[in-house]
Amino acid sequence: MPTTYKIALLPGDGIGPEVLQAGVDCLNALKGDFKFEFTTFDWSSTNFKKRGYYMPEDGIAQLKKYDAIYFGAVGHQEVPDHISLWGLILPIRKELQQWVNVRPVQILPGTTSPLRGVEKIDWIIIRENSEGEYAGQGGRSHVGTPYEVGTELAIFTRVAIERLMRFAFDTARARDKRLCMVTKSNAQRYGMVLWDEVANAVAKEYPDVKMEKMLVDAMTVRMVNNPDSLSTIVATNLHADILSDLAAALGGSIGIAPSSNLNPERNFPSMFEPIHGSAFDLVGKGVANPVGAIWSAVEMLNFLGETKAGDVLMRAMVKVSGDGVRTRDLGGQANTKDVVDAIVKEIGHLS
Amino acid sequence: MPTTYKIALLPGDGIGPEVLQAGVDCLNALKGDFKFEFTTFDWSSTNFKKRGYYMPEDGIAQLKKYDAIYFGAVGHQEVPDHISLWGLILPIRKELQQWVNVRPVQILPGTTSPLRGVEKIDWIIIRENSEGEYAGQGGRSHVGTPYEVGTELAIFTRVAIERLMRFAFDTARARDKRLCMVTKSNAQRYGMVLWDEVANAVAKEYPDVKMEKMLVDAMTVRMVNNPDSLSTIVATNLHADILSDLAAALGGSIGIAPSSNLNPERNFPSMFEPIHGSAFDLVGKGVANPVGAIWSAVEMLNFLGETKAGDVLMRAMVKVSGDGVRTRDLGGQANTKDVVDAIVKEIGHLS
Ligand SMILES: CC(C)[C@H](C(=O)O)[C@@H](O)C(=O)O
Ligand SMILES: CC(C)[C@H](C(=O)O)[C@@H](O)C(=O)O
Repeated sequence: MPTTYKIALLPGDGIGPEVLQAGVDCLNALKGDFKFEFTTFDWSSTNFKKRGYYMPEDGIAQLKKYDAIYFGAVGHQEVPDHISLWGLILPIRKELQQWVNVRPVQILPGTTSPLRGVEKIDWIIIRENSEGEYAGQGGRSHVGTPYEVGTELAIFTRVAIERLMRFAFDTARARDKRLCMVTKSNAQRYGMVLWDEVANAVAKEYPDVKMEKMLVDAMTVRMVNNPDSLSTIVATNLHADILSDLAAALGGSIGIAPSSNLNPERNFPSMFEPIHGSAFDLVGKGVANPVGAIWSAVEMLNFLGETKAGDVLMRAMVKVSGDGVRTRDLGGQANTKDVVDAIVKEIGHLS
Repeated sequence: MPTTYKIALLPGDGIGPEVLQAGVDCLNALKGDFKFEFTTFDWSSTNFKKRGYYMPEDGIAQLKKYDAIYFGAVGHQEVPDHISLWGLILPIRKELQQWVNVRPVQILPGTTSPLRGVEKIDWIIIRENSEGEYAGQGGRSHVGTPYEVGTELAIFTRVAIERLMRFAFDTARARDKRLCMVTKSNAQRYGMVLWDEVANAVAKEYPDVKMEKMLVDAMTVRMVNNPDSLSTIVATNLHADILSDLAAALGGSIGIAPSSNLNPERNFPSMFEPIHGSAFDLVGKGVANPVGAIWSAVEMLNFLGETKAGDVLMRAMVKVSGDGVRTRDLGGQANTKDVVDAIVKEIGHLS
């Protein structure tokens, strides 16, 4: 009996549906002792404008029934971003306890870094995904007056930092044992100092891993000037949000970068999504780069334990990129469909 | 009678004293109806370790007597960064109401951007310098327990945002009338939304300036992929801290970038400092790049109203860079002294 994976599809906005369909086509082409049962949820900004909500009240409860969530993109020019994000993606990350966001960045064959002389980047960014600058607390007082004040409260807990650091050290240990811990504890003396202290304490449990500390501002300089000196990187929710976009750009294109919102305890489904946005300027033209979504499907397969299928899909994706079947953002001529067709064909050869 | 400018010198740590001396040598070479009276303050981390404080109790009061402050660098491996920064540079910025930090970034003649095919960058980053993520509030509870919580409170006030936005729009107006406003109001729904609202309101007063809004993460991608599309940039204290380091790296070297901590009302002295750090690995070798400090001296001259002298110093500095007298971080062979000697000589030609 093949294993059946129940996957919740959340295409969302803009090019989300196009890239997610590309990923589904690739997944369906894979052979193995498994099958997928996809269920699509129409929780988009377009429907928000009609209905006044993204998810129904039991939305999170519905998602809990799935083995994984495969997400497109959210964001629409007619809905303020903080409404769309706090209506959909941020509550999913939080309520399903997807407390770590894993973001690999590599220069793929056929992809060029915008940095002179840089041929290789191989980073994994481990992003805190449950608190910090995204804790969601803050407020406004004296609204509309000349002396109005607005606040944003960043919250750091020992529990969340500790589990994140262990995850980061385990990741570094399985790679080349180098971990770069990012902080801004020179300017931020409370929560960020706790961050440093917990990192230093966890480091003692991993004497074989070399941990370095970098300030977030200086980190951007190092990523540009010395990409090879970095491997596994761990940072706060906001710092990693910024650094992972920069990383993707330095790696060749934001269109290829995947991300995994993981609930490592597997109490709840994890969520896989390209890091790019809804890119309304590309909608309906069939030119969106599907690689970020397809690579996210690879990460989903691996997390589900289907590492053989994950490997086939990754190899097919890399081969096709190296063969020159690339979308415009990568300097190629291919449409979304050309890339998918080539990958599906390549999967056939590899299976 | 020549005007006498009383300048407080704060060399600080590491290469701070070396680069500041370089700047002083250049300033002393300038001719005009002015002279400088320099007073050095030994408020370094080395002295902190001996005395237990950076500034004496009346330190800020002492600084108030000067026309400007010329600052080297602060930071020492034996003093936790949050102690050194909150003991010296951050209180100066705050108590002297230097509420805006202006950071120009240009590729100088003879300097190469690490970005393929990029020959020109000409940005001015306007950084909020009095509040936001550097407000200094936060705390720790349940210290040492497994359920410890640390917080960092970012504070945004209408007053501070409004004066900053006017400054940014005025700067953009005097340049090419393009302003890019950076935010993270999709994830941060209170203070950052106030930030956006005030920016939009001030924008109405400047119909001739084209303001665009960018999320801070996407901004890094744009800086890498499309540097020419940016000109004047305004961002929060933390966002601009990160973006200005990235900008300096993309512009060729963090060693050349200047910054001006301004009190635009001129109630208190403003402070001029290179954006690079104390770089202890370079100390005493005579190889530190003095250009960041010298360019900061240019900004100081301009702010003091000595724009003719500022122009001479800038032209001399640019000429020498173009002539190939460059330190190692710029791929050259010159020592700090070679650069200074060449600039002083060039000042002679230009005067
Ligand atoms: C869409 C938005 C909430 C999001 C974030 O800021 O986390 C995005 O930028 C990302 O990186 O996943
Ligand atoms: C030294 C430190 C406080 C500082 C900052 O974070 O503001 C530095 O990085 C800068 O950019 O001036």
